[in-house]
Amino acid sequence: MLAQLASATGKEIRQLCREQRWAGPTAGLALGYVQANLVIVPQSWAFDFLLFCQRNPRACPLLEVTDSGSPEPKYCAAGADLRTDLPRYCIYEHGRLIAEPVDIRDYWRDDLVAFLLGCSFSFERALLRAGIPVRHLECGCNVPMYRTNIACQPAGRLHGPLVVSMRPMKPQQVLRAVRICELYSFAHGPPVHFGDPEEIGIRDLGRPDYGDAVPIYPGEVPVFWACGVTPQAVVTESRPELVITHKPGHMFVTDLQEGDLLSWRGVDR
Amino acid sequence: MLAQLASATGKEIRQLCREQRWAGPTAGLALGYVQANLVIVPQSWAFDFLLFCQRNPRACPLLEVTDSGSPEPKYCAAGADLRTDLPRYCIYEHGRLIAEPVDIRDYWRDDLVAFLLGCSFSFERALLRAGIPVRHLECGCNVPMYRTNIACQPAGRLHGPLVVSMRPMKPQQVLRAVRICELYSFAHGPPVHFGDPEEIGIRDLGRPDYGDAVPIYPGEVPVFWACGVTPQAVVTESRPELVITHKPGHMFVTDLQEGDLLSWRGVDR
Repeated sequence: MLAQLASATGKEIRQLCREQRWAGPTAGLALGYVQANLVIVPQSWAFDFLLFCQRNPRACPLLEVTDSGSPEPKYCAAGADLRTDLPRYCIYEHGRLIAEPVDIRDYWRDDLVAFLLGCSFSFERALLRAGIPVRHLECGCNVPMYRTNIACQPAGRLHGPLVVSMRPMKPQQVLRAVRICELYSFAHGPPVHFGDPEEIGIRDLGRPDYGDAVPIYPGEVPVFWACGVTPQAVVTESRPELVITHKPGHMFVTDLQEGDLLSWRGVDR
Repeated sequence: MLAQLASATGKEIRQLCREQRWAGPTAGLALGYVQANLVIVPQSWAFDFLLFCQRNPRACPLLEVTDSGSPEPKYCAAGADLRTDLPRYCIYEHGRLIAEPVDIRDYWRDDLVAFLLGCSFSFERALLRAGIPVRHLECGCNVPMYRTNIACQPAGRLHGPLVVSMRPMKPQQVLRAVRICELYSFAHGPPVHFGDPEEIGIRDLGRPDYGDAVPIYPGEVPVFWACGVTPQAVVTESRPELVITHKPGHMFVTDLQEGDLLSWRGVDR
């Protein structure tokens, strides 16, 4: 099944989700198709969130914003339905996680606005192709993520710290990773820090705030990327009456090809 | 005076404007500093306009959005005041131009949001450096601009046609211009069309909708770029109670250096 799903199209994965035949993580599925983080907020929060994305593009590489009340992401996947086409969702009411359904039609409202943001899966595959290790994939666990002392640029009611993901590698691999990730601006772009974790307020790499710890081998340095958990953490902490996101790792698979978005600088129709 | 102003800094030009010692066009001033289009709308229109920019990045290369009620563009020019630091403004009430003041303190409100967008001056200088003609500069007139039959991606209440600027050149210069302008994503990026104007709904190049006609010499083709007049036309046509823009050609001169924004993909602090 998984081997077949690896070569499936984005549309095929979405159809399986819609039919509730797939409710698992999407890492390794539909290889080559861009996968996206989902954040849905009421219209009354949409300006603040859109402005937050504009001001923090590393953490929030915005691929698309839907029309208010429309669940169709016309640019990323015409005909798709964001209420049914992801494997699993998280529902937050006033900042509290209340459900993790496989379908959000019961929660949908005419004033909801959906945001799709690029995710790290795209550049991780590029790192692997270049022979650069991606430790959490080697270990079969989730990427370690940390809250930093770097403040995001605030936007209206939204403010909070940058959350980063960490991948250890050798110094010469860092140089190559920077060059590769520079092309993946739709997927968080180049790292924001490497080396001493305390410089960005991380006390203990062995105790990530999200995800799982991974080993760092002799001669390796920790390398930190802006992480898509940032906008989710920031918006849920502000406690809007309703926020809907994908369940971590259970992404929206678009029709966009990774190769077509290299050096992406915004929608180019 | 002009020769001195060419080598002035962005801050020096803004100070002259603030003191009402300069109320003229900014082309050729503070060379090397990024100049920006200004659009100011009430908060009630800000989401639609920000979304319009996100969906139409060629016409609307967004450099910065201010906090509601704040006239300070912290990213482009910390300490500047958008109410006084441009040479001249246009005030639109319900879509009608009512004044062209040199200072907008009397019109400022606590719910206004200012948008700064890149402008074509940056790539025109790069074209000239590459030996590519910029005809309207040779002629000492304004660039010719045309409404097209290309619909912008609508956003909420905002919709309308793409407006393009036109510069004639030889085919081999077109190829070079595309490569150069690809680096200037903060300034409309590469052309959107060249050749037959009728393909994009332009009937008569000799009668531009905005600006001045320019001659096209034998062996040249007309080349069309998305134009910053697009967002101004779209937003004023929707007739919000108040829209404030710079007067055409009388731009906001930032502290940003053009060289620092090459291949720009969003704010990178």
